[in-house]
Amino acid sequence: MENRIGLKGGGKSVNQIQFADQKQEFNKRPTKIGRRSLSRSISQSSTDSYGSAASYTDSSDDETSPRDKQQKNSKGNGDFCIKNIKQADFGRREIEIAEQEMPALMALRKRAQGEKPLAGAKVVGCTHITAQTAVLMETLTALGAQCRWAACNIYSTQNEVAAALAEGGFSVFAWKGESEDDFWWCIDRCVNLEGWQPNMILDDGGDLTHWIYKKYPNMFKKIKGIVEESVTGVHRLYQLSKAGKLCVPAMNVNDSVTKQKFDNLYCCRESILDGLKRTTDVMFGGKQVVVCGYGEVGKGCCAALKAMGSIVYVTEIDPICALQACMDGFRLVKLNEVIRQVDIVITCTGNKNVVVREYLDRMKNGCIVCNMGHSNTEIDVASLRTPELTWERVRSQVDHVIWPDGKRIVLLAEGRLLNLSCSTVPTFVLSITATTQALALIELYNAPEGRYKQDVYLLPKKMDEYVASLHLPTFDAHLTELSDEQAKYLGLNKNGPFKPNYYR
Amino acid sequence: MENRIGLKGGGKSVNQIQFADQKQEFNKRPTKIGRRSLSRSISQSSTDSYGSAASYTDSSDDETSPRDKQQKNSKGNGDFCIKNIKQADFGRREIEIAEQEMPALMALRKRAQGEKPLAGAKVVGCTHITAQTAVLMETLTALGAQCRWAACNIYSTQNEVAAALAEGGFSVFAWKGESEDDFWWCIDRCVNLEGWQPNMILDDGGDLTHWIYKKYPNMFKKIKGIVEESVTGVHRLYQLSKAGKLCVPAMNVNDSVTKQKFDNLYCCRESILDGLKRTTDVMFGGKQVVVCGYGEVGKGCCAALKAMGSIVYVTEIDPICALQACMDGFRLVKLNEVIRQVDIVITCTGNKNVVVREYLDRMKNGCIVCNMGHSNTEIDVASLRTPELTWERVRSQVDHVIWPDGKRIVLLAEGRLLNLSCSTVPTFVLSITATTQALALIELYNAPEGRYKQDVYLLPKKMDEYVASLHLPTFDAHLTELSDEQAKYLGLNKNGPFKPNYYR
Amino acid sequence: MENRIGLKGGGKSVNQIQFADQKQEFNKRPTKIGRRSLSRSISQSSTDSYGSAASYTDSSDDETSPRDKQQKNSKGNGDFCIKNIKQADFGRREIEIAEQEMPALMALRKRAQGEKPLAGAKVVGCTHITAQTAVLMETLTALGAQCRWAACNIYSTQNEVAAALAEGGFSVFAWKGESEDDFWWCIDRCVNLEGWQPNMILDDGGDLTHWIYKKYPNMFKKIKGIVEESVTGVHRLYQLSKAGKLCVPAMNVNDSVTKQKFDNLYCCRESILDGLKRTTDVMFGGKQVVVCGYGEVGKGCCAALKAMGSIVYVTEIDPICALQACMDGFRLVKLNEVIRQVDIVITCTGNKNVVVREYLDRMKNGCIVCNMGHSNTEIDVASLRTPELTWERVRSQVDHVIWPDGKRIVLLAEGRLLNLSCSTVPTFVLSITATTQALALIELYNAPEGRYKQDVYLLPKKMDEYVASLHLPTFDAHLTELSDEQAKYLGLNKNGPFKPNYYR
Amino acid sequence: MENRIGLKGGGKSVNQIQFADQKQEFNKRPTKIGRRSLSRSISQSSTDSYGSAASYTDSSDDETSPRDKQQKNSKGNGDFCIKNIKQADFGRREIEIAEQEMPALMALRKRAQGEKPLAGAKVVGCTHITAQTAVLMETLTALGAQCRWAACNIYSTQNEVAAALAEGGFSVFAWKGESEDDFWWCIDRCVNLEGWQPNMILDDGGDLTHWIYKKYPNMFKKIKGIVEESVTGVHRLYQLSKAGKLCVPAMNVNDSVTKQKFDNLYCCRESILDGLKRTTDVMFGGKQVVVCGYGEVGKGCCAALKAMGSIVYVTEIDPICALQACMDGFRLVKLNEVIRQVDIVITCTGNKNVVVREYLDRMKNGCIVCNMGHSNTEIDVASLRTPELTWERVRSQVDHVIWPDGKRIVLLAEGRLLNLSCSTVPTFVLSITATTQALALIELYNAPEGRYKQDVYLLPKKMDEYVASLHLPTFDAHLTELSDEQAKYLGLNKNGPFKPNYYR
Repeated sequence: MENRIGLKGGGKSVNQIQFADQKQEFNKRPTKIGRRSLSRSISQSSTDSYGSAASYTDSSDDETSPRDKQQKNSKGNGDFCIKNIKQADFGRREIEIAEQEMPALMALRKRAQGEKPLAGAKVVGCTHITAQTAVLMETLTALGAQCRWAACNIYSTQNEVAAALAEGGFSVFAWKGESEDDFWWCIDRCVNLEGWQPNMILDDGGDLTHWIYKKYPNMFKKIKGIVEESVTGVHRLYQLSKAGKLCVPAMNVNDSVTKQKFDNLYCCRESILDGLKRTTDVMFGGKQVVVCGYGEVGKGCCAALKAMGSIVYVTEIDPICALQACMDGFRLVKLNEVIRQVDIVITCTGNKNVVVREYLDRMKNGCIVCNMGHSNTEIDVASLRTPELTWERVRSQVDHVIWPDGKRIVLLAEGRLLNLSCSTVPTFVLSITATTQALALIELYNAPEGRYKQDVYLLPKKMDEYVASLHLPTFDAHLTELSDEQAKYLGLNKNGPFKPNYYR
Repeated sequence: MENRIGLKGGGKSVNQIQFADQKQEFNKRPTKIGRRSLSRSISQSSTDSYGSAASYTDSSDDETSPRDKQQKNSKGNGDFCIKNIKQADFGRREIEIAEQEMPALMALRKRAQGEKPLAGAKVVGCTHITAQTAVLMETLTALGAQCRWAACNIYSTQNEVAAALAEGGFSVFAWKGESEDDFWWCIDRCVNLEGWQPNMILDDGGDLTHWIYKKYPNMFKKIKGIVEESVTGVHRLYQLSKAGKLCVPAMNVNDSVTKQKFDNLYCCRESILDGLKRTTDVMFGGKQVVVCGYGEVGKGCCAALKAMGSIVYVTEIDPICALQACMDGFRLVKLNEVIRQVDIVITCTGNKNVVVREYLDRMKNGCIVCNMGHSNTEIDVASLRTPELTWERVRSQVDHVIWPDGKRIVLLAEGRLLNLSCSTVPTFVLSITATTQALALIELYNAPEGRYKQDVYLLPKKMDEYVASLHLPTFDAHLTELSDEQAKYLGLNKNGPFKPNYYR
Repeated sequence: MENRIGLKGGGKSVNQIQFADQKQEFNKRPTKIGRRSLSRSISQSSTDSYGSAASYTDSSDDETSPRDKQQKNSKGNGDFCIKNIKQADFGRREIEIAEQEMPALMALRKRAQGEKPLAGAKVVGCTHITAQTAVLMETLTALGAQCRWAACNIYSTQNEVAAALAEGGFSVFAWKGESEDDFWWCIDRCVNLEGWQPNMILDDGGDLTHWIYKKYPNMFKKIKGIVEESVTGVHRLYQLSKAGKLCVPAMNVNDSVTKQKFDNLYCCRESILDGLKRTTDVMFGGKQVVVCGYGEVGKGCCAALKAMGSIVYVTEIDPICALQACMDGFRLVKLNEVIRQVDIVITCTGNKNVVVREYLDRMKNGCIVCNMGHSNTEIDVASLRTPELTWERVRSQVDHVIWPDGKRIVLLAEGRLLNLSCSTVPTFVLSITATTQALALIELYNAPEGRYKQDVYLLPKKMDEYVASLHLPTFDAHLTELSDEQAKYLGLNKNGPFKPNYYR
Repeated sequence: MENRIGLKGGGKSVNQIQFADQKQEFNKRPTKIGRRSLSRSISQSSTDSYGSAASYTDSSDDETSPRDKQQKNSKGNGDFCIKNIKQADFGRREIEIAEQEMPALMALRKRAQGEKPLAGAKVVGCTHITAQTAVLMETLTALGAQCRWAACNIYSTQNEVAAALAEGGFSVFAWKGESEDDFWWCIDRCVNLEGWQPNMILDDGGDLTHWIYKKYPNMFKKIKGIVEESVTGVHRLYQLSKAGKLCVPAMNVNDSVTKQKFDNLYCCRESILDGLKRTTDVMFGGKQVVVCGYGEVGKGCCAALKAMGSIVYVTEIDPICALQACMDGFRLVKLNEVIRQVDIVITCTGNKNVVVREYLDRMKNGCIVCNMGHSNTEIDVASLRTPELTWERVRSQVDHVIWPDGKRIVLLAEGRLLNLSCSTVPTFVLSITATTQALALIELYNAPEGRYKQDVYLLPKKMDEYVASLHLPTFDAHLTELSDEQAKYLGLNKNGPFKPNYYR
């Protein structure tokens, strides 16, 4: 199992990387084998940090489990469990740097601070614990909320940030390198406090939600709203809803327009180049590339590679996306038509077994294979674990798979997500996510009785637009306002929403 | 009033141009003034044909009204009213050329011919009558339908095509240069035939629908389905539906994904360049351009101009589109920030009074102003009809508006749609439209009882995908098929639909 | 033989189109057959004007030859021969519009007017006579020169502009539709005036130069300098020079950097799209195109088509250009590899017989074939003039060549230059040419004794840079100046030249 | 003078990074201080390796100087001086991987092997010693040459590659981390062998050439040719030539077309993105960037950033390049017009003090400043070393310079070359360089008496084309051949050269 890679802790862009899609597996196989493969992957990952930003806490770490330590912050508060409270100062600096890149949350603090829209909110959260999350948490607090937090990933916690949060009075239960047992222990500590009834859940992956749902059904019923970030978590909520067991309104922030466009089109347009360069130093000019799938992710990849001088082929199953690929200037092919000639194969389908052994057998020597889709199923990596093939790890995240005749395929991130494993997610994208989460909490918490039923909702269009508007100043972008006459002509409210809900 | 411009009758690409949005005005002011301005615009338009394709019928035209002529085709049939049956041969050639460029309809003929899915259908149609429409009509007939047809525009009929259709046995009532009285007379002749009860309507603009609705309410009730093409017509159907007066299921084919993408993004990406070049011969490189509105049309215009070396600014009211403009590399400004410096102003908002006199006053000498949005309201052209300004028509569709100090603004198409007035619509785009219409007719006609209520529907996603798939062979594009295992994994039917309805 | 097509006389952008490469043929075959084919092509061409801008003189033309008329301007001067002096007012307006788009010449008038750098210069010119040329001529006069002028093309003269020039006191000998005899008569009248010894020649094609060289050898020896614009004329000068017969320094302005980049890369990037659209209305998106030749013209064509969503293949003979094509993202192929699948074939090689019958036979139905190279030799059009093939003229400049099996090839401009035949040249490009000519005249006229020998020279780099700098204000572009320290560091003069001579 | 740092030794793409700007310092201050600062920078650099490819030899290194060791290869040969002969196997694997990416050299081995065009050549070389160089050296040997080699940079040697070369019988004198004294000692050992008179020099920086010129003037006179790679070395050769002291023909391979285009335009187009991402993780979309200088490097940077959605401004001193920037769609500004608003400043001028303190003072918080030009003079970094500013190293190669008011400027690579310091050079680019060097050696060695005088020459165009042609198969690119008829028409030899020498 993979969790968290490439944490950046030192520089201007302190970035967080999420691995939502891997979690499902985790939850499905909490077996011994699962745990073993888990620990192996942790040790593997520890060699994975790209350049920069080795976490500042690694070197001097003692081996005592945080669960066995007694720590208190400078005010004598000990309601937290983290690696080392002494790292708080360093973590604070990280948070301050992140604040500079998350102007939307800072603006939210200012705008909404007077009225404290989250006064009385008791939020339990389970997300990656990074500097950006800290900015979110402190924003929620500034808006009136009380927060308790655990990590949604055993490997992604920035220990120094957790320390700064604990020093700042937050009840945080998380450290880098939790065991699976630690993971659930932290979640439970976060939830289960004598006399504390949370009324809001902020979740990323659905583990916290399910823990409360299963272990504390009475607590669950009193929850006022759930905000869920990940594809997996949303999927689990819909299942709960279908089964008639969701007794709380939930907000699916994963599918908000702004987040989707940034996570997929705009972010992948940059990370495909970044991920390929950092791992292989390949020159893009003149390379023949096949991109499987022409959804938003595929569109981003294709646009970037075309711009860099690659010759790009596209495969698609959907005729509408196929026609778009044609109109955008890409040859639409079946994979077998070009598999012998391409230099790079990129999957962005969300499907499984898109690149199977048969294709891998026919690729030419040196062909690079990687995955930008949403899970690790697109390339049939398992089919490469056969005796006649030799694997050679040539760099972190880069394997040569060698055929008996000497042909080498360059497999990146063992078929997991290239963009998450081998490049970084810009703070700007994380800012959009965090702002959306904050607004969703405010919306659910303040919604008049009855506006939201026991169902899964998309963020209202207007708030989606509000998230976007909060990020425009970053670009010194000036929005035009409708005149009364124009608004009337268009049949719109001057303040939006401006488009139908289905607008993408 | 404007109707139809730039008819191409002679060459490889025999194109049709639609002017749906102007029709509303027509219907609203059937007054004497309306009629006068109408005839004036006709004579104006007669100088408007770009290059090519002088209509073959112009020269030899006699002045007798078709309504006063008795004509029969070679089989003795006289149930039509057109300019001149003798032009049939020439029109047939036009149709044959169009057939080559509409492979989807030809494929439809082949695939569906065996089962005759329109057997028994009696279709009345009211659309532009062009070679492309003829291919559609003959396809419908091949599928089993009977058709009677009128023109949706007094100026757009290709007389020779109408002749070929009449010779082929179609009851066509249309000629180029109808009066308003002629217009309604033709529609009525089309509908009102002793013993003929139509059961399907194919409309473009809603005039035919309303004529039947008003004049023949009993006939209207027996209609099985309406297929409507235009924004205006769809709008009128929704109004009817809201008022509870729509007793027939109707299909809004205007908003199908495929059509929308082609009509807006892909088509405008090309026609903005074409329209500007044909009218002004402007060099794009280095020009500063402001594009008002960053929807699909704006995105197409911006992409094209950026690619040609223009420096493009964007204005927006919607923060989501605004953020997209930023991410695509355009400075987001208010119009007043750049109005003094830009060389070209393009409106794509769908709004009114976007470019008002105040801005026009501040533009620099030689600034080109044009409209790519959906109506003629975006530029406040009326504000330029003041005594101190001189208008000089320098070319067809090009006016210089001259300020007292000698400053000249170059106004294109008097603020009407540049892409329709000054460039052509590729047959490929028309092919998508016609195929969508044919499939919608088949769907409504064959739908099991109860599938469609008395409401306005979007084309089912699957049929939208089918339209796209029929156009892929044009690009020698090869679609990948899902394996059973993959379809199961994705929870999809192997044959689609592949995306949620809201997918764009 | 073709000469001059698509004269625009009426609008904002009054454009000139040059056909240098055709002239050679003209001079080579002054036979009866030549003359007959000439007159045929004139009548053909008269149907060729695209849209707009029918020449204002056509309609009211009387049939009297200008040579048989006695005309005088309002000041009683009759030393000219043109179509009709009464059109002077209209021509003046054309010139005034052109002035607005040629700011560099206007700036030159201002900057150099005080010192009159051409005082004493007696310039005989032989170029296209258009509004832009008139701006050039009046600039030369403002700088102190006397000018006498003839047309370099029997078809390209804008009669109204010639009238305005005559009214303004210029001795102009030119009209639209000269016979070949007229052509040489005009040149002779221009040169041969009792008591007038020209000292500078401004030529486009070399006809004037050769006339003087042959007929008036003594006059030729007293010429101080020749400025030649065209490839053909430059070629003839080099031949003269090689033969040791060039007794005058000549300036090759055709190969100046600025002109080359604009004539080739930037201009063709736009005109390939324009030429294809105006003739065929083809949709670029998704089309497969092969571009033969990846020099500057090919680079421009490829960039434009790629940006519009075409899939572009390139053929090359030069491995360096081939490698550039690869790095820019184009598949480098041999023509026969793709000839069956492409939708459009474009030649930009400067070579002959690039597209031969064998390839034409294998193209698919509807394939468009056109030439953007420098002559009409690239497509072997002659090979299509065989009995089994049918030619059908479907539009001006558009022929369908039909194979016995019904396959149609769409041949544009009969294989002549698409950009000259079917699109327009922006005034901005003409402005660069005219400014370069003016500066070359000044340079040669004022050069100290001995700087220029009896040879052919390129425009000095510094003047090339000056032409560019005069055009920057059009784009509101602000040049940075070197500090003294920086100039020293770079070893450059602060005012340039900034690059080595070979810089392109 | 040029050097090289940041060797990558571990992966598929074993890349080399050059550090041109550091050596100058080295040579200028061979003082104690100089040496100290040198060693400091070495230790700094040792933390600089990005991701991947920590040199495999670092960890286990003993501290004994190679000069003090006695080593022999497995055949008993000891005529070399390297770090550790035991690393030979590992180095061999590196070389084998590099061979796969340098097909041109491999092809050269095959094609020229029969005739041994370098038989008798005794080559002394002084270049970076990397896997790619090893492929070059073994190619030269395969062609008949004897080679002795030293490193041109004290830090860039891949010890394991040097070991493999020594094991293979090469006399190599180089290790990573030489002192300055070691550096010259190695060069001398390379040259000064009893009974060995070299006849060819392959140099990178000119140090070897000057050592021989100064210390062994008699040896120098017997040299048959010099091939020089670097700007600095070429400059020194021209100086020698001007001074009349160059008694040997020299080939300037730095200015060959192919190398220039790849080193500048194509390579920088990719490395600007790579360098910025690896250091700052910045998102390009929507960022405002100013690029100073629009030569080949600037063109590459601008094209890449524009494609990624940045808004790019350009500054220029040369009006021709300025006009090109305009036509390519960039606003041409002076730096002070945009310095307050931009997010990123990139210098590509080759000039000094382009970004001075005054501009740095006015940049906004978070502005990234970096240099892509040819030296470290473009940004006046010295001006930032003042007491009121705080420097904070936040990552390798990334400094925050902090103003008293808290404003932070992000300075990359301390103003040295971003592309060399913070990204990698693709093997493909190195392959072009190495092939050019090999061909230049062959050309000079085999040239008939008198073809080359005692001067500095550019590589003949035809060989430049040959280098390009050898790299086409990498892209499966198929060159078209001229027919005899076409070659005659164009006046070209069928095998080239195809363009004039000045063609770029």
